[in-house]
Amino acid sequence: MQMQQLLVNGGRLKNTIEAFADFGRTDHNGVTRLSLSEQDVLVRGYFRSCCEELGMTVKVDDMGNMYATLAGREEGPPVVIGSHLDTVKKGGRFDGVLGVIAGLEVARTLVDHGITPRLPVTVMNFTNEEGARFEPSMMASGVLSGKFDKAAMLQKKDPEGTTFEEALLASGYAGEAENRIAEATAYLELHIEQGPVLEREQLTIGLVDCVVGMACYEIEVTGESDHAGTTPMDMRKDALFAAADLITELRSRLGGLDSELVYTMGRMNVLPNIHTVIPNKVIFTVEARHKDMDIVREVEAIIGGLPEELLGCTVQKSKLWGRDTVWFDPHLCSLVEQAAVTLGYSHRTIASGAGHDAQFVAGFLPSAMIFVPSVNGKSHCEEELTSYEDCEKGVNVVLETVLAVLRG
Amino acid sequence: MQMQQLLVNGGRLKNTIEAFADFGRTDHNGVTRLSLSEQDVLVRGYFRSCCEELGMTVKVDDMGNMYATLAGREEGPPVVIGSHLDTVKKGGRFDGVLGVIAGLEVARTLVDHGITPRLPVTVMNFTNEEGARFEPSMMASGVLSGKFDKAAMLQKKDPEGTTFEEALLASGYAGEAENRIAEATAYLELHIEQGPVLEREQLTIGLVDCVVGMACYEIEVTGESDHAGTTPMDMRKDALFAAADLITELRSRLGGLDSELVYTMGRMNVLPNIHTVIPNKVIFTVEARHKDMDIVREVEAIIGGLPEELLGCTVQKSKLWGRDTVWFDPHLCSLVEQAAVTLGYSHRTIASGAGHDAQFVAGFLPSAMIFVPSVNGKSHCEEELTSYEDCEKGVNVVLETVLAVLRG
Repeated sequence: MQMQQLLVNGGRLKNTIEAFADFGRTDHNGVTRLSLSEQDVLVRGYFRSCCEELGMTVKVDDMGNMYATLAGREEGPPVVIGSHLDTVKKGGRFDGVLGVIAGLEVARTLVDHGITPRLPVTVMNFTNEEGARFEPSMMASGVLSGKFDKAAMLQKKDPEGTTFEEALLASGYAGEAENRIAEATAYLELHIEQGPVLEREQLTIGLVDCVVGMACYEIEVTGESDHAGTTPMDMRKDALFAAADLITELRSRLGGLDSELVYTMGRMNVLPNIHTVIPNKVIFTVEARHKDMDIVREVEAIIGGLPEELLGCTVQKSKLWGRDTVWFDPHLCSLVEQAAVTLGYSHRTIASGAGHDAQFVAGFLPSAMIFVPSVNGKSHCEEELTSYEDCEKGVNVVLETVLAVLRG
Repeated sequence: MQMQQLLVNGGRLKNTIEAFADFGRTDHNGVTRLSLSEQDVLVRGYFRSCCEELGMTVKVDDMGNMYATLAGREEGPPVVIGSHLDTVKKGGRFDGVLGVIAGLEVARTLVDHGITPRLPVTVMNFTNEEGARFEPSMMASGVLSGKFDKAAMLQKKDPEGTTFEEALLASGYAGEAENRIAEATAYLELHIEQGPVLEREQLTIGLVDCVVGMACYEIEVTGESDHAGTTPMDMRKDALFAAADLITELRSRLGGLDSELVYTMGRMNVLPNIHTVIPNKVIFTVEARHKDMDIVREVEAIIGGLPEELLGCTVQKSKLWGRDTVWFDPHLCSLVEQAAVTLGYSHRTIASGAGHDAQFVAGFLPSAMIFVPSVNGKSHCEEELTSYEDCEKGVNVVLETVLAVLRG
């Protein structure tokens, strides 16, 4: 017998998104809710009360990660739905929080319909995904996955000099290490795309197969800072001219690699940065991302092959960091795709260019991510927007996937 | 009857250069003597005492400019030798002070030989040439020439918030407006080249025919600051890529104009300057200098003709300022050249790419400048160096020119 399709409550979801956005809402309808700030503590309390109203049990681990669990008919590894409640400064109403609210709405829908799931369903809130107050980003999922050292993370300071440990203790969210999640049947994270691809292609659901690999370099060009008025052109060692040539060269060579490669020179500092002095130093970053690590390695070869001397300036390259592509669990990804098909939502496979907690979680739990469109591709700003309808469809995909996982 | 060639005292000149450098000497043998600072007040007192020892009369005008005058046999417009005693932070031992010491050494040489000049000989110290504490540079000569408004200059503040007026009053060098120089037979300024041309050509004396004209623009490129990982290359509006293209275009077109043209993009700021964010704004300066104002105007046409849109970014150009070439007095320049010939010093005509008090003085007094070589072209730094021998030859040219002017 074909059961009637279970769907979430769109009106309630909209109200929940706006209720959560009240914690730190800015003048221009964005949200500032830095990790472990007063607003973050308040929203955590609200999230806890929403879950407890449903009869869920809320636990907290030693990194402040929250786990709200709806008991199942069986004990056993839970199905986890999660993301993060913190935002960047003047961020939006959707990044992170949507994935937590998705879990809450799934739990509410199950309770609405008197469904006790076969396995526990846990809704997670990861601490400090953004890294906007305490670097690095994805701090707590990084500790859980073993990528980051907990002791080192506890000593990270915010710009005011408060350590993460001090903030965690003050928040009341320093829980027990034994509460850390160690096994799960699945980890699902719904997130806004933070890019323009779904919108451009007029699609609703992004089936995220991976978080792309990347490499980030710093290029330091050193020339000589002579007087702009008295030094003939043929006697200059202008670090900015050399840097501009390097950027042109990089664009030309990276542009020929692959249409899905993205590369950015986002940070660039010119010294001494005085209009009457020839620049003697330019330091800029080059980062590139692609899911095919062979292409990332080609990028690294191109950067490594840049000349060591140019226009009389020396050129030094140093790798700041890199990461390999993280592939999500193929079976779970196929269940997500099947959910989108079942629901009749337009969709495509998409790589995540941004980092997410799921990429660390994927190291120890079967994981998958689902994207919904970002209007104009914007995120991390007050203009960040995903339509309520798209949010609802995304949460429906989460619900349908959870049900599929529970069917086993 | 051919008189024996009058020459300055090289040993004394060297000692005087080092005695003046003791006021604000830095750890690495440079000088920090910001305008109207404690060290500037002390060196002014030392300069005054040196002049008074020679029987010179010292006056101060309302901008703090100092005039030390050796009386002549006749009243009448004096022959003026001058420059400035202030330096930039961690500047050198020669920039500015050499032109003042030149006047002092000329006066000492005249007194040594019992020569009472036909006309008064005045040694000048201009206040705040560098503009390193109070912008703009050449402030006091600018006021005397009518280029700057005195009331506005008095209100200029240093980084600590002290106004120029407060500093001037506190220094004890707020004199009388009636002491301003209004007429002179000649104004001569000896200065280090601050560039590498004389050294490269192994020449000793630069016969400065002009201070070159210039134009300075600010270019503002505005794109969009999207996520570096999630925005496909063909959907970006990368302000840095557009700026790099503009710099390449400017270098290509300006490079074809004239070999003596110099052009510099000295200041460049990238926003938001985060390695994971596509730059949405780049602001950079372009300044160009040439003695032929037709070429400066060609530069302005090229800048004005830059595209208003590039790679999806808007490009705005605004002129920050410009100045016309200032030509020195041809007769006085010919006397300087004749002096170098008489003394048997190698020389060439050279344009000044840097600004000097003489360019403002030239507006109301017959003026000329003399350059001596800068080792490696360096100035405004502790490495600034001109050999004592070259300094001595430069002062001999000043003396010989003064004698020629006095011969009438």
